[in-house]
Amino acid sequence: MNFGVLVFNQVEELDFVGPWEMLTMWRKNANGPENCIIVGQSLEPIICAKGLSINPHASFATCPPLDYLLIPGGQGTRLEVGNPVLIDFIANQAKNCKAVLSVCTGSFVLHAAGLLTGRKATTHWGSLERLRALGDVTVVEQRYVQDGNIWSSAGVSAGTDLMLAFIASVDGEAAAGKVQFAAEYYPSLVKYGGFENHAQAPAYIKST
Amino acid sequence: MNFGVLVFNQVEELDFVGPWEMLTMWRKNANGPENCIIVGQSLEPIICAKGLSINPHASFATCPPLDYLLIPGGQGTRLEVGNPVLIDFIANQAKNCKAVLSVCTGSFVLHAAGLLTGRKATTHWGSLERLRALGDVTVVEQRYVQDGNIWSSAGVSAGTDLMLAFIASVDGEAAAGKVQFAAEYYPSLVKYGGFENHAQAPAYIKST
Repeated sequence: MNFGVLVFNQVEELDFVGPWEMLTMWRKNANGPENCIIVGQSLEPIICAKGLSINPHASFATCPPLDYLLIPGGQGTRLEVGNPVLIDFIANQAKNCKAVLSVCTGSFVLHAAGLLTGRKATTHWGSLERLRALGDVTVVEQRYVQDGNIWSSAGVSAGTDLMLAFIASVDGEAAAGKVQFAAEYYPSLVKYGGFENHAQAPAYIKST
Repeated sequence: MNFGVLVFNQVEELDFVGPWEMLTMWRKNANGPENCIIVGQSLEPIICAKGLSINPHASFATCPPLDYLLIPGGQGTRLEVGNPVLIDFIANQAKNCKAVLSVCTGSFVLHAAGLLTGRKATTHWGSLERLRALGDVTVVEQRYVQDGNIWSSAGVSAGTDLMLAFIASVDGEAAAGKVQFAAEYYPSLVKYGGFENHAQAPAYIKST
């Protein structure tokens, strides 16, 4: 099994490293995919949105056929939705993927590849209106949402919850539990500064 | 202000990227340090514990004096506690740091640098007994703990909560709230597989 994690310049760091940690803990502790691959358009270093520099494992040219593909978000998505090489790579790989997942504004890249039409999806709270304005996506204000073989999550840190739910779906609750325990993912419940009552806070935050 | 994040081969990915995301969101959205620096012994690429390849911004030789230093964990800490070059770097920088923080088994590296003697500290649940066995650390089973200018957190994902609490301490609750909201860090409360009742689960998990 091959699980690809797409990266591009100005990708948001936690958008892909949160899921990456859960994915690779899945490989280590249960029945996760043997090949977990960071895929970039080329093998050149990628500069992330907050300045971290990373090196892809594979380029579009060397990437094997993927069983699963995750598309993170970040400022770079504004440019990448208009990058035909990247969009073609996603569209072509997706034809044979068992599931395609997005985090944060990665949903706009999914949309550009024709994968969100008529689907339920979500994104970072700051981009919900922009996703609605596309017109052909049913936008939900959940932490993450599955619609068939397309999964999407809210902003940045929500990709971690998305990936755990995905693992539970594919490999069972016990497998997701092993990953959660290994990563000690039992987050603090502290909410700072009252932003859960912000006018732009998504519904799932307000309701908790 | 200079905030350094230490990296080394076999560093656990989320241990440093969780805090990194909060740190750089702090810089962007409130009064966080202007210079956020990934520091390695050299500028050579670092291969993380789960295979991610990253490029440090600074080496020990080029790193400026740090105001804050965060030390993540991972399998690599088993080797690095015996690396005098790395331990000396930490011990020397720490003399002028306003605070030093560790995530997961990064606490063992802090200890090797002489910074945990007589202090309260914590680590990944799987290493709590090993930390207690050092004999001169008061080990607590909390998500994170502050003892003076030394902060430490539980495993892997706990570094994110540590950094938010640290931001609230240094820059106030509203600043931490801006960071939390920007990173949409309102995690799911789902616990998979019942591992919170595992014999080795730390006290703070059992009590929630």
